[in-house]
Amino acid sequence: MLKVAIVGATGYTGEELVRILVNHPKVEITSLTAKIEEPMDIADIFPKLSGKISMVCDNLVVDEVIANCELAYLALPHRVSMEVAPKFLKADVKVIDLSADYRLKDVGTYEKWYGAKHRSPELVAKAIYGLPELYRDQIRRACLVANPGCYPTGIILACAPLVKEGLIDLAQIIVDSYTGLTGAGRRASMELQFSEVSENLRAYKVDQHQHAPEIDQELTKLAGCQLKIIFVPHLAPISRGILSTIYLRKKKEVSLDRVIKLFSDFYRDEPFVRVKAGSSFPQVSDVVGTNYCDIGCWSQEGSPTIIVISAIDNLTRGAAGQAVQNMNIMYGFEETLGLK
Amino acid sequence: MLKVAIVGATGYTGEELVRILVNHPKVEITSLTAKIEEPMDIADIFPKLSGKISMVCDNLVVDEVIANCELAYLALPHRVSMEVAPKFLKADVKVIDLSADYRLKDVGTYEKWYGAKHRSPELVAKAIYGLPELYRDQIRRACLVANPGCYPTGIILACAPLVKEGLIDLAQIIVDSYTGLTGAGRRASMELQFSEVSENLRAYKVDQHQHAPEIDQELTKLAGCQLKIIFVPHLAPISRGILSTIYLRKKKEVSLDRVIKLFSDFYRDEPFVRVKAGSSFPQVSDVVGTNYCDIGCWSQEGSPTIIVISAIDNLTRGAAGQAVQNMNIMYGFEETLGLK
Amino acid sequence: MLKVAIVGATGYTGEELVRILVNHPKVEITSLTAKIEEPMDIADIFPKLSGKISMVCDNLVVDEVIANCELAYLALPHRVSMEVAPKFLKADVKVIDLSADYRLKDVGTYEKWYGAKHRSPELVAKAIYGLPELYRDQIRRACLVANPGCYPTGIILACAPLVKEGLIDLAQIIVDSYTGLTGAGRRASMELQFSEVSENLRAYKVDQHQHAPEIDQELTKLAGCQLKIIFVPHLAPISRGILSTIYLRKKKEVSLDRVIKLFSDFYRDEPFVRVKAGSSFPQVSDVVGTNYCDIGCWSQEGSPTIIVISAIDNLTRGAAGQAVQNMNIMYGFEETLGLK
Amino acid sequence: MLKVAIVGATGYTGEELVRILVNHPKVEITSLTAKIEEPMDIADIFPKLSGKISMVCDNLVVDEVIANCELAYLALPHRVSMEVAPKFLKADVKVIDLSADYRLKDVGTYEKWYGAKHRSPELVAKAIYGLPELYRDQIRRACLVANPGCYPTGIILACAPLVKEGLIDLAQIIVDSYTGLTGAGRRASMELQFSEVSENLRAYKVDQHQHAPEIDQELTKLAGCQLKIIFVPHLAPISRGILSTIYLRKKKEVSLDRVIKLFSDFYRDEPFVRVKAGSSFPQVSDVVGTNYCDIGCWSQEGSPTIIVISAIDNLTRGAAGQAVQNMNIMYGFEETLGLK
Repeated sequence: MLKVAIVGATGYTGEELVRILVNHPKVEITSLTAKIEEPMDIADIFPKLSGKISMVCDNLVVDEVIANCELAYLALPHRVSMEVAPKFLKADVKVIDLSADYRLKDVGTYEKWYGAKHRSPELVAKAIYGLPELYRDQIRRACLVANPGCYPTGIILACAPLVKEGLIDLAQIIVDSYTGLTGAGRRASMELQFSEVSENLRAYKVDQHQHAPEIDQELTKLAGCQLKIIFVPHLAPISRGILSTIYLRKKKEVSLDRVIKLFSDFYRDEPFVRVKAGSSFPQVSDVVGTNYCDIGCWSQEGSPTIIVISAIDNLTRGAAGQAVQNMNIMYGFEETLGLK
Repeated sequence: MLKVAIVGATGYTGEELVRILVNHPKVEITSLTAKIEEPMDIADIFPKLSGKISMVCDNLVVDEVIANCELAYLALPHRVSMEVAPKFLKADVKVIDLSADYRLKDVGTYEKWYGAKHRSPELVAKAIYGLPELYRDQIRRACLVANPGCYPTGIILACAPLVKEGLIDLAQIIVDSYTGLTGAGRRASMELQFSEVSENLRAYKVDQHQHAPEIDQELTKLAGCQLKIIFVPHLAPISRGILSTIYLRKKKEVSLDRVIKLFSDFYRDEPFVRVKAGSSFPQVSDVVGTNYCDIGCWSQEGSPTIIVISAIDNLTRGAAGQAVQNMNIMYGFEETLGLK
Repeated sequence: MLKVAIVGATGYTGEELVRILVNHPKVEITSLTAKIEEPMDIADIFPKLSGKISMVCDNLVVDEVIANCELAYLALPHRVSMEVAPKFLKADVKVIDLSADYRLKDVGTYEKWYGAKHRSPELVAKAIYGLPELYRDQIRRACLVANPGCYPTGIILACAPLVKEGLIDLAQIIVDSYTGLTGAGRRASMELQFSEVSENLRAYKVDQHQHAPEIDQELTKLAGCQLKIIFVPHLAPISRGILSTIYLRKKKEVSLDRVIKLFSDFYRDEPFVRVKAGSSFPQVSDVVGTNYCDIGCWSQEGSPTIIVISAIDNLTRGAAGQAVQNMNIMYGFEETLGLK
Repeated sequence: MLKVAIVGATGYTGEELVRILVNHPKVEITSLTAKIEEPMDIADIFPKLSGKISMVCDNLVVDEVIANCELAYLALPHRVSMEVAPKFLKADVKVIDLSADYRLKDVGTYEKWYGAKHRSPELVAKAIYGLPELYRDQIRRACLVANPGCYPTGIILACAPLVKEGLIDLAQIIVDSYTGLTGAGRRASMELQFSEVSENLRAYKVDQHQHAPEIDQELTKLAGCQLKIIFVPHLAPISRGILSTIYLRKKKEVSLDRVIKLFSDFYRDEPFVRVKAGSSFPQVSDVVGTNYCDIGCWSQEGSPTIIVISAIDNLTRGAAGQAVQNMNIMYGFEETLGLK
């Protein structure tokens, strides 16, 4: 049994990690920590988990956690992870970091978007971006995996085949996304109150969301030349899920059949990407609670535009599920273990 | 034009008061105050009001507000109202208090349930409980109206005819209510977060809600002898509205027809109570945004139980709308003015 | 008092018309009709209206309705309106048609998108497209107003200033919209069931919605040359409201300030358009139940893209409210009468 | 591997059965049938299942299904099951019937409440009521299990210990329940439309729901004398889950501690009942997607009333999950297999 710690167990992502790992046949959870007023059983914090696990969640004491685990999931806020990750790595504990701290290869970009000096820039280069469809081989050998952001996961997967194939105008990638509320984290906030959110739709961080540079970085790598997307995220009154509708401009005419074939081929052996047939599109309810990314494509003959729609669960595929998928890859477990 | 001030304009109740009063043909809003970091136009706080009103909302300076109004609505938290109300009354400004501070005639009961010493107990006796169907004549002459709580409004109206008529066992009044989230106020709280509330139902303050003694007080008066209800409030994932299902035990057999006739007669001339015919029941969506209390009754022949269901909008009939109805009565305006 | 009939009173649009007109000081509702099994009081169909109106709703008998009204609102399905409208007009009853039957000036386009031969093509040319901000003068003199579709209302208003000013590339207008469920009508359908819609988001009629040619027609007129938008509508779990996020490509650099000034000037005297300041954006909850269209703009310096976001209530501004605004214009009433 | 058929696979219950059984390590699904226009892959009907199962769902041909299975789940409408079940049983295929057809031991009561003559009354006596906590031993040997209704499951479990112990007045059991919309089945209906349900709460079948006699039957057995509950079900805007608040009258004073101990003892070894400590209560979100029934109790010292609250997922514990639990018992599998 692989001994794992979950650092930051009381957020939505932490809860989802516990939910998945508690049923994982090759894993033993050895520590649960969180910023907490007094030690508390995780099953009292999340009564839903009662009967499945009983384990005290306490404040993080790094040495204690290290002494008893081989892998640590860091479900910490941005800027906190980078303080903690080096200590685990130094002690030969592998790390899957679910914050943004090791995702951006350019430290200056990180510092601009996350508003803080990077505390362990030397690790950035070593971190592997944990999107299995693009980096499976490197994840296999990684000690530090930077688990992708929720928006980037669904958006990069929806763009990758077309960007890589060079079929689209890189100067005109428009991404319109709607997310559920758990994406904003488990915290008290007026803006996230039910009565402010229910029966409402709104955009936020219009063209200024910190996930845009993460998407730009990965699509730029695939394209082989610098690009910059237009990205408008919105809030919808759902708890979980992201639907992204992406508008791409063809370089030259390409048939819908070819586009769909391109996606089908690109994701042929992927256990967690489902490419939809031409006349059907993803919806959030098909992926909630799963690790799937569903993708559908559309283009009218003669139209200059290709529309790609992707759906994921922001907590599963967009965070905890993908993190477990990465663990499965790192440790040579069957990739879908604990995730189906 | 009657000059009115709204003290506590940035909560849900305050917002609802502004929404109603801005269209009231006999009223001029002269002050809006709230606990606020810096002065701000109410239309910037609630963009929904933009185009309907533009008025700066600032911290309360009692003397300034008094200088410019004849009536003050206090939409303040419990325990704060009783500090402020005496000052207005002393300056001959009438007060409609939407907090609980003047509802309970027994100061000891107030102090037990609201956890604070009463600061103006001498006013309690003078305050009129602002339920128009029961106290219209006294409201007409009142200087201080204690606007009823949201639960009590719908529950007292649903019980009053049967309790007054002496048809039911006073020892066995069971009230099961579900409220929307605005009932919990406009404030940051983990418990009120969309993701905690959506797709969820739960009871809270089971048999221990502070509105129970308020209901007991009013039903006791109607019955002419002391009673104590069983009351379990619940949260449902809606923004506005309360549905109360009330289980009463017949003293002796009484037909459904007679029960319905009793209600119809009791509320015959009431502009804001709608008694449903026997085979239909109230629902929250019929009353949202209105000042109506809808009531439906049921009893099977031979059954010992009468079921009464009532629905109100907690912000309108359960707070701001009823407050305006009370103002209309106090100032001799048409009772429905601004409310239809 | 202007005598009006509502033909098709039992859909969501019909209900909203009754809700508004019942409070309109210059209007008397003289007939309510609908496809109905047996005559029924409208207050029994919509218990919410109880106490505000009591009037029997029966199947349409055109001659009876004509005999008693000066203006007919047709809240009928597409393809049904065009059978009925000519009869009213012939009898000198003016018509505001809320279906699509008279919106498209090109009969061939209509027949292609709505799948039926047009039955009164001679009236198409006479019909005025009922978007007050663009056609106020013509509406004033109109006998037949084609009330705009819900999506087109918010989208055309969001594009008009930029398209007219010639600032954007007409070949690249991308519109991403999310609508609430009342937009799909009041009818039994598996797809509209709560459990299929709640906690779900999905696109539908991707790039194939019948409102696209309507938008194309109006923007083409404004631009002075043919254009064709890309339009992807989506369903969100809300009852009312549409949020449209629109991506436009600058022809040459233009500052955000200039864009916002352009919108502010264009809608300066409009009672029902609110242009937001640069750092804030519309949200659905600000417009629900109102006749407002809220519009916000964004563009980063140097970015080739302008983002415009608009929000409306699909039943009010997108249907019944705009229809009443048109009536107010046609009859010389104050334009906001009954709508504030 | 146990070969099982799911008859009625396209309703919400059928879908939930597929979802659970597809992951059950001892089961092979051999047939999926439903009333269907043309054969269709279940993964096309429920895209969510794509990647987990691919199997054609076709109309029921009893002989074909029988030829290839040992156990049939009947997720059919009431009145249809009793036509089909005898054929399976005759062919030595065991049956778990999720309809109401074999739940009521008194055929007259069935015929009264379900409005149809019973077609296989001889099987009623042989059917075992599939509530494991009460009938585990009999389920073990059953050929025909009548899987309990959704409301009865949570309500009977919440009442059983107190009723059996004889602590409460059997003439005064009041049950107030709220259910999610999947409880109404997967079908087109105006009443179930999102816009009719969202932001709404309402009672239905007040004191006249067909699950009341089922609850009466089981509590009567436990009590040893005839009783009749008062039951008011309501609809809440959630997809899944039932919260039942139950008001019981003490025969004589009994402490809360004793009540809680009674429940804890009664359900001590039960894998799927969680009794809450005294100060906390069940909520729907804790049980959604699980087979748990959570139960909490309350009684103030000196109060004549005991309040018991239970929560279940209507599709899992209230239907498919419990059916699988019953199968596990019938075939000697670990009782929680496939359900944790």
